[in-house]
Amino acid sequence: MAEVSNKQVIFKDYVSGFPTDADMYMTTSTMSLKVPEGSQAVLVKNLYLSCDPYMRARMTYTHTSYIGSFKPGSVLNGFGVAKVLDSGHPNFSKGDLIWGFTGWEEYTLMTSTETLFKIPTTDVPLSYYIGILGMPGMTAYAGFYEICTPKKGEYVYVSSASGAVGQLVGQFAKLLGCYVVGSAGTKEKVDLLKDKFGFDDAFNYKEEPDLASCLKRYFPEGIDIYFDNVGGEMLDAVLPRMRSHGRIAVCGMISQYNMEKPEGLCNLISIIIKQVKIQGFLVRSYYHLYPKYMEMVLPHIKEGKIVYVEDTVEGLENAPQALIGLFSGANVGKQVVVVSRE
Amino acid sequence: MAEVSNKQVIFKDYVSGFPTDADMYMTTSTMSLKVPEGSQAVLVKNLYLSCDPYMRARMTYTHTSYIGSFKPGSVLNGFGVAKVLDSGHPNFSKGDLIWGFTGWEEYTLMTSTETLFKIPTTDVPLSYYIGILGMPGMTAYAGFYEICTPKKGEYVYVSSASGAVGQLVGQFAKLLGCYVVGSAGTKEKVDLLKDKFGFDDAFNYKEEPDLASCLKRYFPEGIDIYFDNVGGEMLDAVLPRMRSHGRIAVCGMISQYNMEKPEGLCNLISIIIKQVKIQGFLVRSYYHLYPKYMEMVLPHIKEGKIVYVEDTVEGLENAPQALIGLFSGANVGKQVVVVSRE
Repeated sequence: MAEVSNKQVIFKDYVSGFPTDADMYMTTSTMSLKVPEGSQAVLVKNLYLSCDPYMRARMTYTHTSYIGSFKPGSVLNGFGVAKVLDSGHPNFSKGDLIWGFTGWEEYTLMTSTETLFKIPTTDVPLSYYIGILGMPGMTAYAGFYEICTPKKGEYVYVSSASGAVGQLVGQFAKLLGCYVVGSAGTKEKVDLLKDKFGFDDAFNYKEEPDLASCLKRYFPEGIDIYFDNVGGEMLDAVLPRMRSHGRIAVCGMISQYNMEKPEGLCNLISIIIKQVKIQGFLVRSYYHLYPKYMEMVLPHIKEGKIVYVEDTVEGLENAPQALIGLFSGANVGKQVVVVSRE
Repeated sequence: MAEVSNKQVIFKDYVSGFPTDADMYMTTSTMSLKVPEGSQAVLVKNLYLSCDPYMRARMTYTHTSYIGSFKPGSVLNGFGVAKVLDSGHPNFSKGDLIWGFTGWEEYTLMTSTETLFKIPTTDVPLSYYIGILGMPGMTAYAGFYEICTPKKGEYVYVSSASGAVGQLVGQFAKLLGCYVVGSAGTKEKVDLLKDKFGFDDAFNYKEEPDLASCLKRYFPEGIDIYFDNVGGEMLDAVLPRMRSHGRIAVCGMISQYNMEKPEGLCNLISIIIKQVKIQGFLVRSYYHLYPKYMEMVLPHIKEGKIVYVEDTVEGLENAPQALIGLFSGANVGKQVVVVSRE
């Protein structure tokens, strides 16, 4: 049977502090493009790979990580869009497009198909299925609607607001009639928030030495909903600004992932007087809402009421750098790696 | 009209750090035992006064405290049980027993009656209406049932567990079939938790230099519900021990009230992976459930299925010391001050 070469990104070893290029390397193996006879496996060609902040946690050894650490010496994996080349599974056929968990390589043999979704429509960019129509989209949807139970007119703050999730939370909040302020780390991103995503206001947190007074300036009436992507001192500064019965969805804490010891939060006492809820969540608990989400979001995309900004790098060999870039905020919008366009 | 002498406890000035005797002083004024003609005021004789941890916050100047700071030079106030001596209000008559907000003095003229509850039954000790049948009881009820949504078999941890609220949370949890561990600061209190209140286990936190390993020992399977009365490093140690979809009701943070700068919490990141909810609350949002609570708790008291331990001091002049004692854990059970027994 004919074998093809398969470029792969290998995870070298557990990381402490900021990950670098040197923590991953490229290799080339060979593989057959057929699934083993009698198996229920699916063989795919990877098209788009997703770089997501949660992947940093998998670079550290832990027995508690909710999806497990990467294995030193093995191929990285994560969300991707792929095309089925061969299938032993009744639900998938050659030619199908799917999104779900795949390898950081050109071709992947999937022995578990539980986390795969078939892509139902292709009149939107395929890469959207690792962004607005994939895990980050569902994260924004579940976190904002299910955890934050937003109401028209409420004051909403989103950190890391131009990222894969944040840009959507802000737009969802605007569609609902909330007042929305976002923060990001460059002028370019702040402009994007205001000009492209329609946030009511936005600021560059790196230019704000005093976050407490900054938040007071942007939210003189206080904050009803904080969609937290960063944790750390920003979360601590938000706590005393929360309004009565405020809600904080803790989606991620990217500011903390590369720290040896996390920053201490001193303002938690505020949550008593203001009766604030802080809720951590994982998108995997909400995938049952995916059809409902698609029904809501697809028309908005087609009518141009929701836009989605991606930061695209070409080539698997550039994937490590793209992933690392997340942690210094190098990406503008959702970080996508193009392995192949078809 | 005859006037009587009225002993009073006066708040001297705003406090930083631990409050002391010197922050309050006794005085004696005179007052008439009739309400002003034409007013809707109620004049009461105070019987029992409640010492509660939240009162510490009112000793510090703040414009954000939810019920306002004490006023330097004025009578302290708080929850109490009192007897109506005269009333201009149609809902209250001479001889009625009430509980609610009153002054730290022998007689109080109440011009606002919104926070007063009439005492419906006297076949339980009257002091219970500042404890199990009053604000602390409602706090335990709302925090445990409404915020923590407990289920049979869940693992429940209560800090400050022999206090006015904690002892009830533990007993509610046992009645529901939970596994309950409490912590307190003396051997006497720990024995009380196990022998009197029926906790499954209990420990003296002051003898535990490593809270993380201590909690691991008492909760090898993790914690589903943490009823937090103390905040600070105990809360931080609990966070990584929480089980998936765990709930933390933040009722109080007595460990932090006397600190100039609160302790920093470093483990908040755990709430993402475990999808934990942390909810601050105030009992005042739940008084509409008071009739439902009474219906539940009164039979349990009468059947001896729920017990309530009070720490009683005699005499208004001993009230300041009793209040201060809360912050060093001098009280064993609910701290009550007897002003008069009838």
